[in-house]
Amino acid sequence: MFAEIKGLNEECGVFGIWGHPEAAQVAYYGLHSLQHRGQEGAGIVTTDGEKLSCVKGLGLASEVFANGKLNEITGKAAIGHVRYATAGGGGYENVQPLLFRSNNGGLALAHNGNLVNANQLKQQLESQGSIFQTTSDTEVLAHLIRRSGYQDLKDGIKNALTMLKGAYAFLIMTETEMLVALDPNGLRPLSIGLLGDAYVIASETCAFDVIGAKYERDVEPGELLIINDEGIRSERFTMNTNRAICSMEYIYFSRPDSNIDGVNVHSARKRLGKIMHEEAPIEADIVTGVPDSSISAAIGYAEASGIPYELGLIKNRYVGRTFIQPSQALREQGVKMKLSAVRGVVEGKRVVMVDDSIVRGTTSRRIVKMLRDAGATEVHVRISSPPMKNPCFYGIDISTHEELIASNHSIEEIREIIGADSLEFLSVEGLLKGVGLPHEGENRGQCLACFTGQYPTEIYADTVLPHEKA
Amino acid sequence: MFAEIKGLNEECGVFGIWGHPEAAQVAYYGLHSLQHRGQEGAGIVTTDGEKLSCVKGLGLASEVFANGKLNEITGKAAIGHVRYATAGGGGYENVQPLLFRSNNGGLALAHNGNLVNANQLKQQLESQGSIFQTTSDTEVLAHLIRRSGYQDLKDGIKNALTMLKGAYAFLIMTETEMLVALDPNGLRPLSIGLLGDAYVIASETCAFDVIGAKYERDVEPGELLIINDEGIRSERFTMNTNRAICSMEYIYFSRPDSNIDGVNVHSARKRLGKIMHEEAPIEADIVTGVPDSSISAAIGYAEASGIPYELGLIKNRYVGRTFIQPSQALREQGVKMKLSAVRGVVEGKRVVMVDDSIVRGTTSRRIVKMLRDAGATEVHVRISSPPMKNPCFYGIDISTHEELIASNHSIEEIREIIGADSLEFLSVEGLLKGVGLPHEGENRGQCLACFTGQYPTEIYADTVLPHEKA
Amino acid sequence: MFAEIKGLNEECGVFGIWGHPEAAQVAYYGLHSLQHRGQEGAGIVTTDGEKLSCVKGLGLASEVFANGKLNEITGKAAIGHVRYATAGGGGYENVQPLLFRSNNGGLALAHNGNLVNANQLKQQLESQGSIFQTTSDTEVLAHLIRRSGYQDLKDGIKNALTMLKGAYAFLIMTETEMLVALDPNGLRPLSIGLLGDAYVIASETCAFDVIGAKYERDVEPGELLIINDEGIRSERFTMNTNRAICSMEYIYFSRPDSNIDGVNVHSARKRLGKIMHEEAPIEADIVTGVPDSSISAAIGYAEASGIPYELGLIKNRYVGRTFIQPSQALREQGVKMKLSAVRGVVEGKRVVMVDDSIVRGTTSRRIVKMLRDAGATEVHVRISSPPMKNPCFYGIDISTHEELIASNHSIEEIREIIGADSLEFLSVEGLLKGVGLPHEGENRGQCLACFTGQYPTEIYADTVLPHEKA
Amino acid sequence: MFAEIKGLNEECGVFGIWGHPEAAQVAYYGLHSLQHRGQEGAGIVTTDGEKLSCVKGLGLASEVFANGKLNEITGKAAIGHVRYATAGGGGYENVQPLLFRSNNGGLALAHNGNLVNANQLKQQLESQGSIFQTTSDTEVLAHLIRRSGYQDLKDGIKNALTMLKGAYAFLIMTETEMLVALDPNGLRPLSIGLLGDAYVIASETCAFDVIGAKYERDVEPGELLIINDEGIRSERFTMNTNRAICSMEYIYFSRPDSNIDGVNVHSARKRLGKIMHEEAPIEADIVTGVPDSSISAAIGYAEASGIPYELGLIKNRYVGRTFIQPSQALREQGVKMKLSAVRGVVEGKRVVMVDDSIVRGTTSRRIVKMLRDAGATEVHVRISSPPMKNPCFYGIDISTHEELIASNHSIEEIREIIGADSLEFLSVEGLLKGVGLPHEGENRGQCLACFTGQYPTEIYADTVLPHEKA
Repeated sequence: MFAEIKGLNEECGVFGIWGHPEAAQVAYYGLHSLQHRGQEGAGIVTTDGEKLSCVKGLGLASEVFANGKLNEITGKAAIGHVRYATAGGGGYENVQPLLFRSNNGGLALAHNGNLVNANQLKQQLESQGSIFQTTSDTEVLAHLIRRSGYQDLKDGIKNALTMLKGAYAFLIMTETEMLVALDPNGLRPLSIGLLGDAYVIASETCAFDVIGAKYERDVEPGELLIINDEGIRSERFTMNTNRAICSMEYIYFSRPDSNIDGVNVHSARKRLGKIMHEEAPIEADIVTGVPDSSISAAIGYAEASGIPYELGLIKNRYVGRTFIQPSQALREQGVKMKLSAVRGVVEGKRVVMVDDSIVRGTTSRRIVKMLRDAGATEVHVRISSPPMKNPCFYGIDISTHEELIASNHSIEEIREIIGADSLEFLSVEGLLKGVGLPHEGENRGQCLACFTGQYPTEIYADTVLPHEKA
Repeated sequence: MFAEIKGLNEECGVFGIWGHPEAAQVAYYGLHSLQHRGQEGAGIVTTDGEKLSCVKGLGLASEVFANGKLNEITGKAAIGHVRYATAGGGGYENVQPLLFRSNNGGLALAHNGNLVNANQLKQQLESQGSIFQTTSDTEVLAHLIRRSGYQDLKDGIKNALTMLKGAYAFLIMTETEMLVALDPNGLRPLSIGLLGDAYVIASETCAFDVIGAKYERDVEPGELLIINDEGIRSERFTMNTNRAICSMEYIYFSRPDSNIDGVNVHSARKRLGKIMHEEAPIEADIVTGVPDSSISAAIGYAEASGIPYELGLIKNRYVGRTFIQPSQALREQGVKMKLSAVRGVVEGKRVVMVDDSIVRGTTSRRIVKMLRDAGATEVHVRISSPPMKNPCFYGIDISTHEELIASNHSIEEIREIIGADSLEFLSVEGLLKGVGLPHEGENRGQCLACFTGQYPTEIYADTVLPHEKA
Repeated sequence: MFAEIKGLNEECGVFGIWGHPEAAQVAYYGLHSLQHRGQEGAGIVTTDGEKLSCVKGLGLASEVFANGKLNEITGKAAIGHVRYATAGGGGYENVQPLLFRSNNGGLALAHNGNLVNANQLKQQLESQGSIFQTTSDTEVLAHLIRRSGYQDLKDGIKNALTMLKGAYAFLIMTETEMLVALDPNGLRPLSIGLLGDAYVIASETCAFDVIGAKYERDVEPGELLIINDEGIRSERFTMNTNRAICSMEYIYFSRPDSNIDGVNVHSARKRLGKIMHEEAPIEADIVTGVPDSSISAAIGYAEASGIPYELGLIKNRYVGRTFIQPSQALREQGVKMKLSAVRGVVEGKRVVMVDDSIVRGTTSRRIVKMLRDAGATEVHVRISSPPMKNPCFYGIDISTHEELIASNHSIEEIREIIGADSLEFLSVEGLLKGVGLPHEGENRGQCLACFTGQYPTEIYADTVLPHEKA
Repeated sequence: MFAEIKGLNEECGVFGIWGHPEAAQVAYYGLHSLQHRGQEGAGIVTTDGEKLSCVKGLGLASEVFANGKLNEITGKAAIGHVRYATAGGGGYENVQPLLFRSNNGGLALAHNGNLVNANQLKQQLESQGSIFQTTSDTEVLAHLIRRSGYQDLKDGIKNALTMLKGAYAFLIMTETEMLVALDPNGLRPLSIGLLGDAYVIASETCAFDVIGAKYERDVEPGELLIINDEGIRSERFTMNTNRAICSMEYIYFSRPDSNIDGVNVHSARKRLGKIMHEEAPIEADIVTGVPDSSISAAIGYAEASGIPYELGLIKNRYVGRTFIQPSQALREQGVKMKLSAVRGVVEGKRVVMVDDSIVRGTTSRRIVKMLRDAGATEVHVRISSPPMKNPCFYGIDISTHEELIASNHSIEEIREIIGADSLEFLSVEGLLKGVGLPHEGENRGQCLACFTGQYPTEIYADTVLPHEKA
């Protein structure tokens, strides 16, 4: 996946289903289709109406649930989670769903996003005697609910949610119901579907296609859904909402076959490529994209420009957990790992290399060099998003200002650093137009914080960046 | 990979290197880039000039050589092999290289291809008291060499090779030299490269790009290379040669970034798509390819037709060994596994679906149905190769006549079976023109046997099809 | 181990060390020697003075810490735990030491014993908003400490301990100190040793022999030890103590090479065998013991009686986790698993079979039958402990009244059920005399509750038996 | 097991069964009971009358056949093998049974022993063109059979066996029969039993007890048994026989519950201990044995002397493959691993330490030191076998002359080296009398070669010692 190449990560995908005899199995296929959102760990909690059962573990869903593990969790409903790969911390404790058992029943939580006031809340709760067993900000919600004092879980959750700031898409399950909540800015994607009579919730609509479910609608900012054997009920935990879906979901996180707010991701990417060509045309022999996430934009650029799209870069599909890193000596001799340039295609050609973003610039420099080593006479880099200048506090592992090359360098400087003949980024207007959604808005709108620095929520002094977590 | 989807398999990839201090490591990266040619098993044998060392096992190269196994095989030269996934037989014994030790030294063999007279030779050898420990036809060569009586290994090998019929690309290694042989028809690809001073041999040139080696030339039909510390020497074990490289290597086996006989595979596929459009144009809204092997042809078709290329089908990258198959009930409800159609792209559209071949027709039917279920109003199937009517005896796991749908049905019948609105295959002339090589020839030429039934070698009554092996 | 054969289990062993450069390694060998006390899971937490590090997992210590895991936990001090095998529940969460992190530091707990008021305390804590993540009663202590409100950890612990009822030997570690506590009845064994300058704590003294440490003394009931870089300090959290060490530790739990309260376990067992002979002599040809725990008593019986000790029963050492259970058909044909009778020794002989206890009687019946099938003409069973009539609430997995055969049957009835020619149990007086300790006492004394029904602590209505835990 | 402690190993155990519906399962339990004879690898080959099926692998039987592997090999008959742990060589290829497939059927071989002319035969066969794929001498027999030219397998085997020199107990199986052969000296144990109507063959009779089979008789030197659906037939491949069962089988290899030539191993060991006392009495406080193999002899010594038997040394049962070796520093601080002395028993005592043999002397020295460190005031070592002065060529991994301490030192010198207060070995006469069998003989007799240097077979210049194999 792209993330592995660029060091740009996103946290997690969630999936829930209520009212299906093979709930765990369906959740498994759903998580499988969301696997690109996280490969560190996976888990499913089910309910049979009387008790919660859980299987989780480190690794891919197909590994975690292998060896008949799925058969250990039967029931009519399930929530599941895939977790993204942290730099080395993490560990089993943080694999979700988190499951809390007590004398009056269990509570399972699956979360996609990042709370900007998690630290504050945690300190407060600890000073009142709470014990945290994970370093996940998700656990904060469980403690807030337990301490809310409300008789009714729904009210406890509503109350707790009003204390949270930041980005979150929560799935919560007890023995008898499933609750779904999306933050007031709707920063993370979350959709509702129907599989026969069963309600399905997923981070991306690609999960619906895979399990054969019908897409109904996206969950709305500030909405709390209560799903149980009686059906589905929509409530609000706040009316103070402003939709700002993360634009990076379109640019590269989401699977190209997903739709968010009615916009197909692949089509959006092709449009970004097309507008990129309008904004920054260049004379060249071939267009190529950095696999996998930039292929759509590259095809868009190619179609718009009339320059043929070619397979100038290829990714090795078999680079997994056990892949052995080459020694320094071999690296210097030119051993490639995940990505290599295709000499037969590139040699003697002027190449437009389309990529979706530049974070530190090191990967871009490496790819440009690869293309030149393979014989490209010119390499023109086109980035299908604006320069990324600001860290993200909402779940995407975008580093601090210091590490973001566009935060400290002009485009010309970056061009020189990565060794390209020319370099152009998409404009913010081009992004808005290509995706086809305005910048924030009551019902539809994008978060552009990493490009513009305008954060849709309050940011706290002790806010923890996703990549700083243990 | 394509093979997993279509049940069309090829046997194995080979890699060899002589004269590099980290020979095993380089071989590992080479095999890694050839992993698409076989995922069942992998092995490397090295020599340090005095003894042969071996690590092999079932699974992907990255699994087999994990946990420091690579460090167990040091030396200046190595041969390696990746083996394709059989239906269930196979097992550890057949993982290559095969290593035979005796009092006067060891002999390691790695083989890509299929011998058509293996059964005859095996019976003969057994009747003379030889014991076979594998069901691999590769072992036949070892026995023939040992029984040849020649003092000089090279002469023994030459003599033995003249008894073999069929397709083979052999790497043979002793403590002190590496020998390379290609069958008189050059049915399987095999190329020579240079990595600094080290000689490199690989089934596909993509391995050279990955390790940073320079491509030199393809091994010629009937050629025997002897490589040792003195250098490389080319001899002939027969002058009766006729080049007939397997055309399916271009159509779908090889990695798109490889070149065979100077022809880049991706470019050849784009040309096949382009010619397909010339031969069978159609009015439609989008062109889509069946991933991964048909993407290039689909882009070629799209560029030639002016119809936009879209991502109408998507493949899940995380389907590995441990993937859990859905229950029949879930399957009927529409749970997809490896491939799914993208509703957001396909809905309400007339789709040209480009695929590279049709074997039994079941996969095509399934994909056409997927597209329709996702809302395609018309599905026009374009196959970038001619109808496959004859089994392959040279290493590709193409079934018997009975199982090949094109062997028993007209194109119109096939169209009806797969449920397409229209169906067209590429012509044989189109294939020759698209690849850019003639049908057989002294130095350059393609084997078209599976399309035309003209086999470049004798076929025996007891010839074993690759998929019939234990 | 015995437990596997008889379904009689004990919970856990603990080990701690402060002031050693290879603390984790030493803890590993210590736990290894305590492995007979629990095979379900193992864990070690270390401190380097600034942070706590943890490795734990399911399985034997040698499995959990394999693959270089020990190197991940460096530091000058460590506490460790081995956990006993529950019927199937348990799971990773309950593996100890439990580690709780908070903003003002971490807290690791390792516990051997069973709290009789854990349920009460847990309900109370949950009603105040605490969230429990394990089903271990150990976690109760952590919550009590965090909620105690004391500035000083030591005071918080003292306060929390006064709320606990039951049996416990606790090791508690923060970044800067290790605390050790034993319940007011000293129901579980716990000893102090010295390894050079390092303080060592272990459930059994055999751990000292293995690591080369010098035994100092046993921890006293009601004692709280505080160990840090300044040294060791002994305090009391209660003066209301009454020593009642579990007599089953002598009878079968502890390793024969351990000493408890100055009494060597093997020697005590030999004395029990000797007294058994005095109380219930019999004319016979050989004496044999049920391995492993009854061998010492059998030798004692043999020496006292002059009847030769023979190896009439043998245990297969290689029965591990992956052992495959025989089918019912094979079982009926007589396939033995862990234990078999030695025909060459037993045939035609009158056998005294010495065992240490009878729980349900099923194992005894099976062994008597084995001996008869192997040709024993008479089988006289001698049990080196009194009839077990009452459940244990202090950590030993002795079932409810219904399941204890001696609770519902006379000795003559039991004899008939197990099919012995004669059956005798040791008297309570014989037990006291053989072990050499009185029944309870200020400093030295045994708990005889399972034999006499006199429990040294209050028992609550909702007290959970160890084997009822999840 | 003892072998792990002393570096004295034996090769392998074999098990066969014909005529049982769950042949593989029974073989598994049989191999399990023979596991002490080899822990490196295990395998089973079955026949259902038409084809041979095989499962084998590295590790313990319970590991190799875990995960349902046993269900892959169904049939009415089976042969199995457990292989002993070599120093590091070995590997999968050498795990037995070896299975050779050919066009006219399969041949499976399982072997216990060592051929003294394997090298000669192998060179001869290789010069005739045979290819060896293992370094096992077992493979020689397969080649000899295949090359024998006999129509009838039985005749081919008889012919082949006459060419073999050394020690061997062979199980051979085809689709339709099982053949059993023992070398003319009967150096290795092999017995016949009956399980209902099924014939059972095993290296030791303990396997019969475990599966509930009835012992019939021992296989005779020079005997060839042919077992098939018609029944069992006994033939001879030579009349020139002289029974010389390895006396080390009694002294320590075999399980104490096995009988060999009608002699129970435990009883023999007790007699050796008793005679040891007669030959070398000593005044002392306790007798202790080195676990596990010397316990019986120690009890014999104790009973004869009237000195109480005590548990002065204890072995940790949980030392398995994954056990982590202590660092040098910890070792010097006194960390014990497998064996430790029991201070509570030994302190202040004069100890008779009974062991079964001394090879290099290093282990003895270590144990004597342990006892002294634990407070023993005197340590008197009594060895229940004569000094071992000569290497074994028949399958026991007894080192060359140089490594055998008794080959180069007087008893007084050895005493000094191991640091004992006194040291005595059993006399050869004592050994003969204790076991109760003469030195060699037509039907009953022992091999004493390692004590006396009189080898019952010819020894060749190029004979390979078991521990020199790859």
